[in-house]
Amino acid sequence: MSEVREKATLAGQATTQLGKLRTAQKNEALLLMADALVKESEAIIAANAEDLARGRDNGTSESLLDRIALNPDRIAGIAEGLRQIVELPDPVGHVLESIDRPNGLHIEKISVPLGVIGIIYEARPNVTVDAAGLCLKTGNAVVLRGGSAALASNSKIVEVLREALSRSALPVEALQLVEDPSRASVDEMLKLNGLLDVVIPRGGASLIRNVVENATVPVIETGAGICHTFIDESAQETMAAAIAFNAKVQRPSVCNSMETLLVHERFAASHLADLAAKFQEANVELRGCERTLELIPTATAATNEDYATEYNDYILNVRIVRNIEEALQHIHTYGTKHSECIVTENAEHASQFLQEVDAAAVYHNASTRFTDGFEFGFGAEIGISTQKLHARGPMGLPALTSTKYRIVGSGQIRG
Amino acid sequence: MSEVREKATLAGQATTQLGKLRTAQKNEALLLMADALVKESEAIIAANAEDLARGRDNGTSESLLDRIALNPDRIAGIAEGLRQIVELPDPVGHVLESIDRPNGLHIEKISVPLGVIGIIYEARPNVTVDAAGLCLKTGNAVVLRGGSAALASNSKIVEVLREALSRSALPVEALQLVEDPSRASVDEMLKLNGLLDVVIPRGGASLIRNVVENATVPVIETGAGICHTFIDESAQETMAAAIAFNAKVQRPSVCNSMETLLVHERFAASHLADLAAKFQEANVELRGCERTLELIPTATAATNEDYATEYNDYILNVRIVRNIEEALQHIHTYGTKHSECIVTENAEHASQFLQEVDAAAVYHNASTRFTDGFEFGFGAEIGISTQKLHARGPMGLPALTSTKYRIVGSGQIRG
Repeated sequence: MSEVREKATLAGQATTQLGKLRTAQKNEALLLMADALVKESEAIIAANAEDLARGRDNGTSESLLDRIALNPDRIAGIAEGLRQIVELPDPVGHVLESIDRPNGLHIEKISVPLGVIGIIYEARPNVTVDAAGLCLKTGNAVVLRGGSAALASNSKIVEVLREALSRSALPVEALQLVEDPSRASVDEMLKLNGLLDVVIPRGGASLIRNVVENATVPVIETGAGICHTFIDESAQETMAAAIAFNAKVQRPSVCNSMETLLVHERFAASHLADLAAKFQEANVELRGCERTLELIPTATAATNEDYATEYNDYILNVRIVRNIEEALQHIHTYGTKHSECIVTENAEHASQFLQEVDAAAVYHNASTRFTDGFEFGFGAEIGISTQKLHARGPMGLPALTSTKYRIVGSGQIRG
Repeated sequence: MSEVREKATLAGQATTQLGKLRTAQKNEALLLMADALVKESEAIIAANAEDLARGRDNGTSESLLDRIALNPDRIAGIAEGLRQIVELPDPVGHVLESIDRPNGLHIEKISVPLGVIGIIYEARPNVTVDAAGLCLKTGNAVVLRGGSAALASNSKIVEVLREALSRSALPVEALQLVEDPSRASVDEMLKLNGLLDVVIPRGGASLIRNVVENATVPVIETGAGICHTFIDESAQETMAAAIAFNAKVQRPSVCNSMETLLVHERFAASHLADLAAKFQEANVELRGCERTLELIPTATAATNEDYATEYNDYILNVRIVRNIEEALQHIHTYGTKHSECIVTENAEHASQFLQEVDAAAVYHNASTRFTDGFEFGFGAEIGISTQKLHARGPMGLPALTSTKYRIVGSGQIRG
């Protein structure tokens, strides 16, 4: 049996015991995990040093090395993340619906763990701990497959966490790490129907595309965001500038940052030059439609391909539109249904935008950067779903649950 | 552009208008559709006669021909189904959660249509109407791909329904039928990411397997059920016999019927012979474990493959177990997480079974045959989901919705 299949099978065998745990038992295990991480910081940092040395030998970029790097402070922060999960309400075991049928059947819909969750992710070793904590808090077993660049770190972390689990009421086998660094182990995970209940990819566009295109196991797609801000004619200048600037510049590398600014022609005539100057001062490269280029000669021409690109960088498309309909049409054509914003003082336009834009999060007068489980007050985030099935937008703990119907009768048969 | 892609694109263009409709407008369209079906019965039956004649020429089985066949009564029944959908509450447009953040952001989670739903199904032309009605009631556009054996009937029905839509507030393009009978049109639908939000297969095991294995679009898996009834030591004899008999014999061809009967050894010693005789009188072929064969010499030996087979027929596996743990282990090994039942007077065992069995519907003292949207009181059923994502068990109208977050601010930006 392959490593992947064996570990998924062991995880599956742990689910019965996991489903029976009380919240207090799960929380106790998470606290033991947090303490163990801090206590074993030195050993984890030593393993991490191996990853970093191998990365340097292989010419890994400094920015990637920085994302992999662990130090006592970062480990303390990761442990603190586990303790925060302890504080969150347990979404498992609740009666979500209760139905009494005329024939006397009593039906209850109960929230239950999903079962076995596969997480496929890239370099950051903090995802290892974070995903383990979120899955175990919700009574799920988890099979982690992290990037090979952090393999030594991940192996040590999971060893430490499993040792902590062995001192808890949770089954150790609920937490599995696939250590085969080959592409084949990912491919195999994606086809483990019957052993994995869901696969969640966390990482860049190519990782997510590979999972979506090749998985036969159900997937929760996360990630890609080509987000827009539309500044309407009636927008307050200061507010519009602040929201647009924040959406682009506060953290350009993330999925909820803005890639294209749509500006009503009247607002553009009065204010676009100032706004553009502000972006350019912040080293944002501007690519504009024809009318934009007339107002901002230093911008380059935006292509349709630009409008369809998630830059995740200091680059911004600017397009001038005649009215809200043109803005809606642009978003319908190029948006990825992630996060979209209108800045307007026109209540009718705000209402139309919130109604008609088909996206996980639609904003009136606030930055798209708020699409985030913590900003929504969920206290945790597994990722941001960009699909419409099961969960949409920022996913908190309830996104890691399913349901089952319990039906109690007194001998009812169907006629 | 292929027929499939063109029709999915047209359906997608209809979604904005669909999302804005009021419940009354959708209901009016459904009633127009129902009336049109009855009014055009003659033309539909003429088209249906073509399918039946072609089927007979091709040597189609009489049972399949019967499933395809339409007559005025059946059409009236199908139209009545649409009228029943009108009576159901509209699951779209509800505020499911409302969050006020310390920074003043007001966040609402709203139920919205899924978007464009692909339905891939087999022969019965009633599915054409049923699926159209359920999708349109929930504000979704739908792309139907029915079996080629009913193509003429489906084409005529969709023509009639679209004509009715043209007299309603609904966009005609919301309802699409793929008429290309080749396997290629199904294959193409399964890869229409970005155009279809979900594909739901309705049909036999091989159709469902094809969809699950080849779709890159999100799928709601429906169907396969290897369901068990466990008769515990303390079960009331009459109740146990009635439930087991009903689960097997009332309609063996469906997914919620029983395939394997698990019997506690003490109950078996006293009552299995009588129960077996009752099954055999009803022409149920019995396949038993070794101990069963001692009590029922007329049964044949059950293999592990038998335990893993969904017969959908008058065949039943019987296995004697020493205790509830053995029953749970058997269900864990061979169950498909559809519907499972314990018959017992022991409250502790009932509670253990309801807790530990991982299935969409778990029963205490009632037949598994009740796993059905109508029996649960949903008033409709799109199918029975056997996956854990999005929807599990019988799916009513809410299973055809997604959510979106609407966020209203006053200039908030992220710090």
